[in-house]
Amino acid sequence: MTRVVVIGGVAAGMKAAAVAKRRDPALDVCVFQDEPDVSYSACGLPYHLADPDVIPRNKIIARTVDRFRADGIDLRVRHRVDSVDLSGRRVTVTDLSSGAGITEHFDLLLFATGARPIETDLAVGAGAPALFKLRSIGDADLIRPWLGQAKRAVILGGGYIGLELAETCRARGVSVTVVEMAPRLLPGFQPWIGDRVTSQLEQHGVDILLGRRMTAAKSGRVILDDGTSLDCDGALVCIGVRPNVDLASSAGLRLGRTGAIAVDPAMRASAPGVFAAGDCCEAHHLISGAPVWYPLGDVANRQGRVAGTNLAGGDAWFPGVLGTAIFRAFDLAVARTGFTCPQAQAAGFEAIDVRFEAPSRARYMPTSRPLAATLTAERTTGRVLGAEAVGEDAVDKFIDVIATAVWSGLTVDDLSDLDLAYAPPFSPLFAPVQVGGDLIRKREFREPAMRSKIAEAGR
Amino acid sequence: MTRVVVIGGVAAGMKAAAVAKRRDPALDVCVFQDEPDVSYSACGLPYHLADPDVIPRNKIIARTVDRFRADGIDLRVRHRVDSVDLSGRRVTVTDLSSGAGITEHFDLLLFATGARPIETDLAVGAGAPALFKLRSIGDADLIRPWLGQAKRAVILGGGYIGLELAETCRARGVSVTVVEMAPRLLPGFQPWIGDRVTSQLEQHGVDILLGRRMTAAKSGRVILDDGTSLDCDGALVCIGVRPNVDLASSAGLRLGRTGAIAVDPAMRASAPGVFAAGDCCEAHHLISGAPVWYPLGDVANRQGRVAGTNLAGGDAWFPGVLGTAIFRAFDLAVARTGFTCPQAQAAGFEAIDVRFEAPSRARYMPTSRPLAATLTAERTTGRVLGAEAVGEDAVDKFIDVIATAVWSGLTVDDLSDLDLAYAPPFSPLFAPVQVGGDLIRKREFREPAMRSKIAEAGR
Repeated sequence: MTRVVVIGGVAAGMKAAAVAKRRDPALDVCVFQDEPDVSYSACGLPYHLADPDVIPRNKIIARTVDRFRADGIDLRVRHRVDSVDLSGRRVTVTDLSSGAGITEHFDLLLFATGARPIETDLAVGAGAPALFKLRSIGDADLIRPWLGQAKRAVILGGGYIGLELAETCRARGVSVTVVEMAPRLLPGFQPWIGDRVTSQLEQHGVDILLGRRMTAAKSGRVILDDGTSLDCDGALVCIGVRPNVDLASSAGLRLGRTGAIAVDPAMRASAPGVFAAGDCCEAHHLISGAPVWYPLGDVANRQGRVAGTNLAGGDAWFPGVLGTAIFRAFDLAVARTGFTCPQAQAAGFEAIDVRFEAPSRARYMPTSRPLAATLTAERTTGRVLGAEAVGEDAVDKFIDVIATAVWSGLTVDDLSDLDLAYAPPFSPLFAPVQVGGDLIRKREFREPAMRSKIAEAGR
Repeated sequence: MTRVVVIGGVAAGMKAAAVAKRRDPALDVCVFQDEPDVSYSACGLPYHLADPDVIPRNKIIARTVDRFRADGIDLRVRHRVDSVDLSGRRVTVTDLSSGAGITEHFDLLLFATGARPIETDLAVGAGAPALFKLRSIGDADLIRPWLGQAKRAVILGGGYIGLELAETCRARGVSVTVVEMAPRLLPGFQPWIGDRVTSQLEQHGVDILLGRRMTAAKSGRVILDDGTSLDCDGALVCIGVRPNVDLASSAGLRLGRTGAIAVDPAMRASAPGVFAAGDCCEAHHLISGAPVWYPLGDVANRQGRVAGTNLAGGDAWFPGVLGTAIFRAFDLAVARTGFTCPQAQAAGFEAIDVRFEAPSRARYMPTSRPLAATLTAERTTGRVLGAEAVGEDAVDKFIDVIATAVWSGLTVDDLSDLDLAYAPPFSPLFAPVQVGGDLIRKREFREPAMRSKIAEAGR
């Protein structure tokens, strides 16, 4: 009987284990997970913390340990894998409950070790406020009771997790200051988006300090590098994550240039019978083909599905990613897919973009809200390369249509002509994607405009 | 100077006139419109009538007569075109204000005569309740004051306009009975969708009578063919529309097999220098290539844009339609794109479908609602052919992504792998489109699954 060992039991690991076992019930699938819980939605933790009565802890767990076991998966929680012997096909494991050491044989191995928070180099002194990170459900278990009695919080890091947690704090009545070392919030997005989100947060009573970083924590305060001192009950450190690759690296697996485990489209790592999936490994960008690292829950699940299929003898492959992402900042949705103009230019494209606003629904409907976006295309062909968008409504729809268009190689002309669902409560006559496509087309192309081969075939 | 005459000033006509004049300001563009208003949103009328304080009449008008004139368009409202002499390049027109007859020369002509309601063959007797149709803003002007004092309405026709008006009536506190001659509401959709919408309407206090038609109106009642008599203050007749082609047909233009004016992708009709756009003409279906007739506001506007470009010497073309449509029935959105399984089979495809439910957002978010859908694909290739969907949330997003996928020739495998925007407030980990794609893929295909050439190229 083939023995599959999976290291890690959150998104990619449990998805792969479940898919492999379902595809080949004869497979012996063993998962080691260092935490007591598995298969939880890390992305849901800010919403659980914002309102634990409406979204209790158990709802965040997609599938319990018992259910996985009932499905025949040998799931060992509170077990930490300490080393991997690829040639000897063995893992050395510590049972964290008993402290006992175990050795387990494997035929096939999956790394699903995820990512871990970047360590801070803070000087922590006496009476320092509580310092939290939010990566695992165990982290949330520490934050939850603290939030119930905290009055003032500092959030270090103005990326999307920091901003989600700012909303969480305000929902719990906690005053909050966000400290970001870059000159703007959301340094990964275009500057105008960071500015727009800054005003949104300020409207909701969040203080924002830019261009500064925290250097010390002591006596109920955090101290920033410019000497600012912020009284607080605790600080949430959201300064980013790194792929968790120590185990893979020690075992001799090749890391890619992003620092994550290098994999092929079948999710195979550099040793025979060894796979990786989720936040610990790379993906290929669908436009550039370059290896990228996007630690995102949906990517992890899709990679886990491919790895699980292949662990069970299948021939699945992961086509790649566009870096599509979305998050909520109070009333605003902020989203992106594909390349911005600078990213496209860096990847060798002659890229152009247009920034525009369009109503989310028919202008006269009271539910209509302005959607602001930048759409990027290749100048020579009109091919859509990506978009970023902000708004209170229909941002997810806008980005999903653009993501599908980029995936498909559509041009701005296609975008402008798409046959989308129009009715006043749902869309204006020309949807925001069509407005953007038409703006670039009118500015850059003469008729007959560039069209994708797909549309051309129908002429 | 080239003289362009446009017959009709609502969606396609005014869009074409504005685009042509903007593209070539030297063009002499003259529009004849029989109503006093132009460029109004016919699709917005049910929402205007539901709440005229929030959506007043002037908001429904996208652009006023004065603004078009200020842009240099010779716009003649209350002018009815009586006949067209194609070889003599003349139209004969009646000025409805003065009764005077005019003759106008044209070099290029656009038919944008729209559609008109199917006539009823009712026996109308003494004391009959008011009978309304809703096609123009003038029709709405008659309904608005009546709605303000009506107590009971009957709606004839259970298609989407009838159901939108049922919502309008309820919003104004008017009791309403919908009478549909087919055995189900929404005869154009799959039966389970009609059933679901029926329960939704009944929950909102709408009475529904199926399999019956109205035969007479008299003495404050309407009488149905089974003898049922319904007391009411008025009846809204929404039994469908036909292309308004009398003028084009008399002039000798070729009609297509749908009964609407036959056009090529440049919106050229069958005589030189004569174009047609909007509800009076056909379009080609993007999957089958067959001529179809979908009288929809967004199609009319896109066709008007193409016609306007070409009237001004451009070389634009209209790629075609998928029959994408959406409407609201109280809390539900109901939408479709492309083919259902029976439609695909009728068009010669070996088609398969799957009916499924998926949450609109992460299951634990209080804003998540079930979305129910049928997804159709080609068995041999996995190519996505269409979908129908119902739900309280994210139905428009679902259909727009499917419409983009069908436009692009994506397969169910592509759908399942798309890199869409995931965060708990906006989507579950696997979006409904991915759930549907995965279900067909797992049921019908073995790995390596069928993929579009687009995705295959990235392997």
